[in-house]
Amino acid sequence: MLKGVTRAGIGQAGSIESFIQAAAEHGFEAVAAEGKELEQWIADKGFAGAQAFLKEHGVQIGTIGLSVQWRTTEEEFRSGLARLAQDAEAAAALGCTACCTYVLPSTDYSAAHFMALATRRLRTCAQILAPYGIRLGLEFVGPHHLRTRWRNPFIWGLAETLDWIDAIGENNVGLLFDSYHWYTNELGVDDILQLDPSRIVLVHINDAPAVPVEDVLDNDRLFPGEGVIDLAGFLGALNRIGYRGVIAQEILTPQPLTEPSSVLLKRSQEAFRRVYAAAGLE
Amino acid sequence: MLKGVTRAGIGQAGSIESFIQAAAEHGFEAVAAEGKELEQWIADKGFAGAQAFLKEHGVQIGTIGLSVQWRTTEEEFRSGLARLAQDAEAAAALGCTACCTYVLPSTDYSAAHFMALATRRLRTCAQILAPYGIRLGLEFVGPHHLRTRWRNPFIWGLAETLDWIDAIGENNVGLLFDSYHWYTNELGVDDILQLDPSRIVLVHINDAPAVPVEDVLDNDRLFPGEGVIDLAGFLGALNRIGYRGVIAQEILTPQPLTEPSSVLLKRSQEAFRRVYAAAGLE
Amino acid sequence: MLKGVTRAGIGQAGSIESFIQAAAEHGFEAVAAEGKELEQWIADKGFAGAQAFLKEHGVQIGTIGLSVQWRTTEEEFRSGLARLAQDAEAAAALGCTACCTYVLPSTDYSAAHFMALATRRLRTCAQILAPYGIRLGLEFVGPHHLRTRWRNPFIWGLAETLDWIDAIGENNVGLLFDSYHWYTNELGVDDILQLDPSRIVLVHINDAPAVPVEDVLDNDRLFPGEGVIDLAGFLGALNRIGYRGVIAQEILTPQPLTEPSSVLLKRSQEAFRRVYAAAGLE
Amino acid sequence: MLKGVTRAGIGQAGSIESFIQAAAEHGFEAVAAEGKELEQWIADKGFAGAQAFLKEHGVQIGTIGLSVQWRTTEEEFRSGLARLAQDAEAAAALGCTACCTYVLPSTDYSAAHFMALATRRLRTCAQILAPYGIRLGLEFVGPHHLRTRWRNPFIWGLAETLDWIDAIGENNVGLLFDSYHWYTNELGVDDILQLDPSRIVLVHINDAPAVPVEDVLDNDRLFPGEGVIDLAGFLGALNRIGYRGVIAQEILTPQPLTEPSSVLLKRSQEAFRRVYAAAGLE
Repeated sequence: MLKGVTRAGIGQAGSIESFIQAAAEHGFEAVAAEGKELEQWIADKGFAGAQAFLKEHGVQIGTIGLSVQWRTTEEEFRSGLARLAQDAEAAAALGCTACCTYVLPSTDYSAAHFMALATRRLRTCAQILAPYGIRLGLEFVGPHHLRTRWRNPFIWGLAETLDWIDAIGENNVGLLFDSYHWYTNELGVDDILQLDPSRIVLVHINDAPAVPVEDVLDNDRLFPGEGVIDLAGFLGALNRIGYRGVIAQEILTPQPLTEPSSVLLKRSQEAFRRVYAAAGLE
Repeated sequence: MLKGVTRAGIGQAGSIESFIQAAAEHGFEAVAAEGKELEQWIADKGFAGAQAFLKEHGVQIGTIGLSVQWRTTEEEFRSGLARLAQDAEAAAALGCTACCTYVLPSTDYSAAHFMALATRRLRTCAQILAPYGIRLGLEFVGPHHLRTRWRNPFIWGLAETLDWIDAIGENNVGLLFDSYHWYTNELGVDDILQLDPSRIVLVHINDAPAVPVEDVLDNDRLFPGEGVIDLAGFLGALNRIGYRGVIAQEILTPQPLTEPSSVLLKRSQEAFRRVYAAAGLE
Repeated sequence: MLKGVTRAGIGQAGSIESFIQAAAEHGFEAVAAEGKELEQWIADKGFAGAQAFLKEHGVQIGTIGLSVQWRTTEEEFRSGLARLAQDAEAAAALGCTACCTYVLPSTDYSAAHFMALATRRLRTCAQILAPYGIRLGLEFVGPHHLRTRWRNPFIWGLAETLDWIDAIGENNVGLLFDSYHWYTNELGVDDILQLDPSRIVLVHINDAPAVPVEDVLDNDRLFPGEGVIDLAGFLGALNRIGYRGVIAQEILTPQPLTEPSSVLLKRSQEAFRRVYAAAGLE
Repeated sequence: MLKGVTRAGIGQAGSIESFIQAAAEHGFEAVAAEGKELEQWIADKGFAGAQAFLKEHGVQIGTIGLSVQWRTTEEEFRSGLARLAQDAEAAAALGCTACCTYVLPSTDYSAAHFMALATRRLRTCAQILAPYGIRLGLEFVGPHHLRTRWRNPFIWGLAETLDWIDAIGENNVGLLFDSYHWYTNELGVDDILQLDPSRIVLVHINDAPAVPVEDVLDNDRLFPGEGVIDLAGFLGALNRIGYRGVIAQEILTPQPLTEPSSVLLKRSQEAFRRVYAAAGLE
């Protein structure tokens, strides 16, 4: 399972090339990026140049974010589709095979109606990504405070999200499986052991403070191994079911972290060493 | 638009043949039936015999009901699928091209999760019906008391149901458009005029008592023209947009009506004459 | 049925605005355009400006062409998808709801394998067009010489194309129905009368010389009414089944026509008057 | 990879229970069956009884055959769909997750048109099987004589079949991968090594005589290890890519084999031992 890093938790990582280079220097094999920044990089450096840079540093583009706004109006949604095709084109050119989005656990819209609209919109996104060989990963979001942040409960659990993926009905839709949401859903190793690894598009890793689980805040995460999530169990189970994709660190914080990126990357590298070792993975 | 009748409101109509015959005698051109009763009829009479009987009486099978239980567990749902294929086979053999189901406006399940499950299940039903040339009609249910009958609001309106049909994503899914639910959703003639008639699989007609609309009960319906629904507007608008399918009477009552079926059919025949005339349709 | 004109047969029609203006001056209500030229026009004039120009001249954009290369390699196909999304965005902004492509009746590829590839590729195109409210029209091509122009017969008839549309399986795919191909397939008025008009995305009109039908060349067409195709029957039948879309003139010629566009447009206007009158349509 | 056996090559294996028992006695862990015979068995023995019998003997139902006639007319196709649902219900009740069909490499129909029809029909079959958790396996058929047995070439190779599966477009369609067709397509170990094992629904094993590959007849197969196919390479590669499903023996012969089933099963058992050993699998 490849060690990856997102920009969340590593401060100002700079240009895509600085980010890739720094990630590589700290033992990471994958980074998350935005479609637009990849498109710009290809425009500046050419396909071959960008591909060579990645190869040279031993880094993959683990995923891009879903840039389309699918949570509000039809007009907003439609206006983002041409951009999505361009994102996909850039991502695919650099060997990226994932595009992910998060699912807020509550909504001010009617829950059932919004589910119908979102199902169709995410199906359209999956259909645009498919010819580029890109899979769409949906991230269920577990922290309890967000379940009541908006008026109506939507979905926040593993089983519900798998059922939603079936409703969307496209071959290339799966999970973005984040340890924070596994933890705040009070799931266990058995829940992972029952998963078909082909259902997982990407994994996020992070840690949670020692507070009651219902008080854990979505944007107050810790570095892997610095908190109470059973990351050894999490990683061990993912490895056991045969998941061989990217484990990408995502640390959301109330304020952007101020330490230099190199310091935060070193801390991330240590964090990964710690939890991989605890999981018997190195 | 063909005049049709369901068994709801016409008392004990007897066997499928008595029902068809009586319907024909009272000016009706279509009846609603159940797949199983059609299958039995074909077994008794043969395809040719049953087809000839319908032709002789100038009656079509307007629709069958969706016999699959899609509202509860996965096991219950799956156990009904082979039956659905048999229903479809019998219905198609007799020229029936519609299969309808109602959508309760609230649910004890999580609304978003149930929407995802129901989307997939109804897609499967549509896919089984499609090779038989049968369309699946979804009926939104408007009476206000049912919106809070179960714990969580689901969907009950026209726009939401059209969005749900798009989420289900199969070509052969449309609306069962019932005047009672048009009325209790406080929709108007304009809402019908904006509809693409190809989205309507079947129409139900009935009337409502002169009580505040939020107090109208789902199972306390009147014969067309005996209540306050603007059926002239309803029928006129459907005709204007080019709907040429069946208008089937469905009168749900608290207790089964006790008058002889012939009396109730005569009343239905009069009711249709009344409202068709008011709509300028005869 | 709206009178429309493509650039094929009217010489050098100039910019999109010259084309629209000239079309309007000659009684046409629709023009065909390319997505890229619409995108450029919107960039130059703004959405509102372009929409206003169309409205002012009483002209619609009847269709754009499918700019994606779906007939060759997977790489060529993929490289055109982002462009397709942009074409669709521009077209939809100007109220255009159709995007059409022609189907060559023979291929150097294995016919069955190419059918499988083309089915998937056209499905992807339809899926990209769908959120923009645009339908994909497939034009079967009848001239006999093209059936053996390449090594293996593909498809060229109405029934086969309808079956192919079902195989593609998306709601928004239909026919581009061209009189030349109706004629060279030796179809009749009855074949049109049996069509569901909702299956027709666009109609092309033109005429054929008085030579044996098997000798009719695809690129040697005449103006409507100047040849032997029963265009009165063609138009009358389309009108009778309820087709209310665009009838767009497409005259393919061996050499580009040299007369001034105004002369050719006048001839087109006369041609339409002639055949519409013969069909009892004006 | 589980050792399995079909009735082809083991003479008269008797009732489903005799077949299962004899298979178990000879080291097999899976058998192929027909949906109708499973339905009858369940009717006779009950679900629990049949499930217990399978468990007791350590045998799975590896696959059922696709009983629908999809190769001829639309009427024939439709008439088999209710049966398919019942087959699926019986198979699923006994834990069977595969339903397979063969693809003849030539056809008297127009190849492209037949591909379109077959795509839609097999999609319908896959959609009926899906709710039962059953995958549809398509077997490409390689022997050269069958490529010209009917008028028009259809498809017979691995790549074409994978493209066809994409055209069918349902999640639950994959390959029935048969060594005889791998051999007569002159494919190698590398072709297997590039496969995603999740694309393989079932594997058939058998052997071919030492004649030029273009002269190998489809119905003249040998027991594994008695011929010239590189079954060690075949099995080794399947194992290496992570295929963990059933390897089912299928020996088609010009005349039914006359030896007692026990003799033929012993020969099959030896054949498996031989080739599994050669592949380093035991």
